[in-house]
Order: sequence, then structure tokens, then C-alpha cells
Amino acid sequence: MNTTRTITLKNRPTGKPELTDFEFTTSEIPELKEGELLVSARYVSVDPYLRGRMRDVPSYVPPFELNKPIESGVVAEVLESKNSHFSKGDYVSGLLQWKETQTAKADGLIKVDSDKAPLSAYLGVLGMTGLTAYLGLTEIGKPKKGETLLVSGAAGAVGSVVGQVGKILGLRVVGIAGTDEKVEMLKSEFGFDEAINYKTTENMVEAIANSCPDGVDVYFDNVGGAISEAVLFNINKFSRTVNCGAISEYNNIELPKSISVQPFLIQKSSSMKGFVISDFADKHPEGLRQLTEWFNQGKLKYTETIKEGFENIPQAFLDLFDGKNKGKMIVKL
Amino acid sequence: MNTTRTITLKNRPTGKPELTDFEFTTSEIPELKEGELLVSARYVSVDPYLRGRMRDVPSYVPPFELNKPIESGVVAEVLESKNSHFSKGDYVSGLLQWKETQTAKADGLIKVDSDKAPLSAYLGVLGMTGLTAYLGLTEIGKPKKGETLLVSGAAGAVGSVVGQVGKILGLRVVGIAGTDEKVEMLKSEFGFDEAINYKTTENMVEAIANSCPDGVDVYFDNVGGAISEAVLFNINKFSRTVNCGAISEYNNIELPKSISVQPFLIQKSSSMKGFVISDFADKHPEGLRQLTEWFNQGKLKYTETIKEGFENIPQAFLDLFDGKNKGKMIVKL
Repeated sequence: MNTTRTITLKNRPTGKPELTDFEFTTSEIPELKEGELLVSARYVSVDPYLRGRMRDVPSYVPPFELNKPIESGVVAEVLESKNSHFSKGDYVSGLLQWKETQTAKADGLIKVDSDKAPLSAYLGVLGMTGLTAYLGLTEIGKPKKGETLLVSGAAGAVGSVVGQVGKILGLRVVGIAGTDEKVEMLKSEFGFDEAINYKTTENMVEAIANSCPDGVDVYFDNVGGAISEAVLFNINKFSRTVNCGAISEYNNIELPKSISVQPFLIQKSSSMKGFVISDFADKHPEGLRQLTEWFNQGKLKYTETIKEGFENIPQAFLDLFDGKNKGKMIVKL
Repeated sequence: MNTTRTITLKNRPTGKPELTDFEFTTSEIPELKEGELLVSARYVSVDPYLRGRMRDVPSYVPPFELNKPIESGVVAEVLESKNSHFSKGDYVSGLLQWKETQTAKADGLIKVDSDKAPLSAYLGVLGMTGLTAYLGLTEIGKPKKGETLLVSGAAGAVGSVVGQVGKILGLRVVGIAGTDEKVEMLKSEFGFDEAINYKTTENMVEAIANSCPDGVDVYFDNVGGAISEAVLFNINKFSRTVNCGAISEYNNIELPKSISVQPFLIQKSSSMKGFVISDFADKHPEGLRQLTEWFNQGKLKYTETIKEGFENIPQAFLDLFDGKNKGKMIVKL
């Protein structure tokens, strides 16, 4: 029986994850069953939300099990198919384990076309990342032309798509990011109207007020924490906050505290709503169609940070929490 | 020219309001103009939200001005009318100043019928209080039969109506209040399925879990603060929090901090939304019709705490923050 390199969760991280929380092992590749595919990973997505699955608490997706493989979005090449819809040489995208080679059920995998877009894009702007941005913004943010959209974690994979979709929909778009280089990229590459470097800004409340002179109508929040506190002072009547992520709070050991949001929400008749992309499963096909159309029209750009090598997957994941990625963080095998 | 006793705002309270923040003065009653009414206050409503108007910050309603009369919901008797829709002896309800006698424009005042309900009910269950409960619950909470509704400040004016409407709509209803007497009243008078005395409960997270074995689908929040923190641990996937009030936080001098809500909202695809009753102005007539129908059918009970005397209005207002009221707090003149 063949074997494959595998990355498992060795310890549930306390606070910030470390390399020692992961273990490289060798696991057997079972016999291919009828309907299944044997696939070889080409691009592996590492995402902040995986941190949540490393906790042993019930959530929208079950936690990772200790000493079992971690899984995330992966683009893989079909080595062998026992499913009539897929052939050797096809590329597929879906949730797969952190293994170099594995067997997988075909449902849940979608075929992707390397002629239409670079394969890695199917993990980003044309995949779950793009859908998260597009459906979070449209379904929860309900943006209206002329409104102001503020995006935190704006240079991240989701944030950069949110901003571009906002521009396509006719909004004033302001981004928050953590380096001058990212701030510059948001404006020059992704068409944001303004961007703020929160690490060099002393008074974020004021900086947001200056960048959003008409206030904030939609806040697409990827970070939570102190940045989101500052946003509260700038929200408009009937504003909507899309709670997509809270990366600043994921590694806290104690439950993090923030300024109470309730008085602000009441004063502004404002809403906050969290989501995961599976909430909108029925809208995924239409979302992908729209994203692909914009992508083909050259309206959606993306940035990736690509690390190379199976052995670097854990480090790439850790780098997310230090903001070392611009756009989607991907490991190429 | 005639004069009337008047209560003005002398100081903007810092923290908890005090009697010395109010001043009793005498003001002139201007000549009655065409279209106006001369009215004499009979019942004056004191409400937690007035605390917000005592701050000098822009809000959904402008702040009270220093040394100007305070205003709130009042039922008054028409002493003289220069408006064809009203006659001497009619009773009207609306936002009026804290004066014994005053002239007022007729628009914004509605005629109320003392034969159909006690006059004070038009400040409560058949007035803004009832509308706040009914429209907040239905428009934001979007309750579905069989779901669990949790109400904080449940023995207050709004909370007790929310719970009853929840029962009428077929929900399991659990209330949180601050005395054993109130807890008993919620169950015996208002038909709540369960009620929790937060002052004698050590572990609110656990107490809510026990009272809401299927989790919380709709949380109607009148209080904010520590109670609302405990609720976060019990919310269901797709749950809705109606942010109606945050009385526990109104008197804070520093901005109060709470456990960050973002990770909970994301994990549960849950929403929070604040509102003020004027957001739903177009739904007020239908809301009042529904409340009146239920009231006439004996399905909506209410409790009032009635203080007597114009001179006791400020103290009645202060008593709200010590939870001295059961149901609507009203001052009878």
C-alpha cells in the first residue's frame, strides 16, 4: 500500500499557534473505491478561520481531531478516477486534507479550468474567498450606490475582494491595513478611495472620520478588536456591520473585552451580523458566476502570497497572524 | 399672562443622574395660536431612554438643552382648543414638556379614549412602550413559533409586553429580572415559562442554559452589560438579538467594556440590531391596532408603578435606574 506525507494537529494551540502544534506523519493511502478520485495536492489554502477549528468547542464546522489530518481548501490534480465525471489530469477544488496524495469522494469537489484562470485563483477570488467577500457584502452589508464601505483586514484575501466589489457597486471604499506597502497597494492596485495604516495611526477614531467624511454605512469586519472599537464611533444611522472575521481575537486565551457595542447599535439603529459561507450555499453558483464574469472583464484583481513546499504549510498558516501575507496565502506543492 | 410649574435640565448628569440635575422653575404660558391646544398634563411617562437625551452628543433625537424643559410621553387633558379636531375635555397623548400646563401643536398628539382603557395605558401597553415591544420583537427578532425568546429587563414596561407577545406568537419565553417578586410576577401574571433572578444567580451562563434547554433564538435585550455577556454563550445558530436598551450601561462615565461579541456572532451566524421606535413609524398604526385588539381580548396585561405629584417626576425617573419600578413607571398629576 502506498503512503503519503500528512500534517496532523498535535496539540490544540493555547493562544498563538506554534509549529510544535503540528506534526508531520506518514499515512497510508487506501484503495480507491468506486466513485472516488485519487488526487495530488497542487495548491493548499491556509486561512484564519482554521484557527477556530483547532479549538475543542462546537462550532459551525466540527473541530479538528487531535492526531488527525487538518483540512482546508485545496486545488489538486486527478491522478486516477473511478468517477465518470472526472478524468486523469483534471484539476479539482474543494476541502481536502493536508496530504500530498489522497483519495476523496467526488461530491464536494468541483472541476476547475486552468485555461480560464491560474489554478490558485480557485482558492481565492474565484473560490471560497471570493464568495465570502461577495456574499457577505451583498447579503449582509446590503450596500447601496453612493454609500461608504469600510473594510478592515483590507489587504487580506477577503478584504481586497470586498473593496473591489464595493467599487464595482458604486461605493466609496476605505480600507484599513497594517503596513504602508499594503495601504499603497489598496489604493493603486485595488482601487480603494482611501486606506489607513492602523499601525502608524495614533487616533483611529479620527483617522476613520477623516477618511469617511460621510460616516460609515457598511463595515466589513475581518479583524474585530481595537480597530472595530474605533469604527463604532463612525457608524451611520442604519449602518450594517458584516462580521466576517475577528483575527485579532482568535489567539486570545482569555475572552477578549471590547467597548460594549449595544449603546452604539441602539443609538444608530445599526446592525451586526456574523456568517460563514455555507449559510449562503444556495447562492454559491450565482456568486461564482458573477465573480468569474468580473474576473474575465478584468475588474477583479487579486494578490497572492505563495509559499512553496508541503513542509511549509504550518509556517504559512502561522504567518497569517503576523500579517505577513498580502492577499490570499497559498502553499504551492 | 399665566404661568406654569416646569422642570428643566440643570446639569448634564455625570454617571447616575441626581435630583440636583433637575430644576423646578416657573415659565410663562404663551397665547394660544390657531391650530394649537392648551393642555394640562395628567400622566407623565419617565423612561430610561431619556438618560441618553441628557448627554450632549448627537443621537437619534437631539439632546435636551440645559435650562430648557425636559419632555417625555404625556397624557394630557385639553383645556382649550383652537384646532377643529380636538375639543375641550378630550384626552391626548404625545411628546410634551414637563409642565403642568402648556400650549402644544396638535400634530404629533393623538386623541385617546378613557372609556376603552385607563388613560395611563396609552403611555404603556397601548402607546410607545407597547409599540417598542411589539415592533422590536416582530421586525427585528422575527420570531418563529416554537422558538425560544429570552427577555432581559423582563419586568420592565417593554419587557413584560415583549414576553406576552412572545407567548401569543407561540414561543417559549424566559425572562430575566432583579427580584424574586418580579420573577414570580413574570410567571404568574405575564405567562412567562421561566424567569431568572439575576441578582441571586451566581452563574448566569448556566442558569440561562437550564432555562433555555434548546438555546436562545431571539434575545430581546433591555439591559446590556454582564447579563448580555452571559446570553452570548447560549445563542443558537442564526439567532437574533434585539438591542432595545442598555440600561445597565447608561450611567457609566467611562465607556463600558464587555466580552467581544464578534467571535460569538461569527460562530453562530447571529445578528444584533438596535432600533428606536421612530424607525418603524409607518408601522405604528398597524402595531397599535394589533396591541389594542389583544388588549381588548384580555391577552395583554400590564403593570404600572404610579407615583403621584408633579414634584416627584425627577425622583420617579431616578428610581428607574434602581429597578424600583414594576412595569411602566408613570407619574400621575
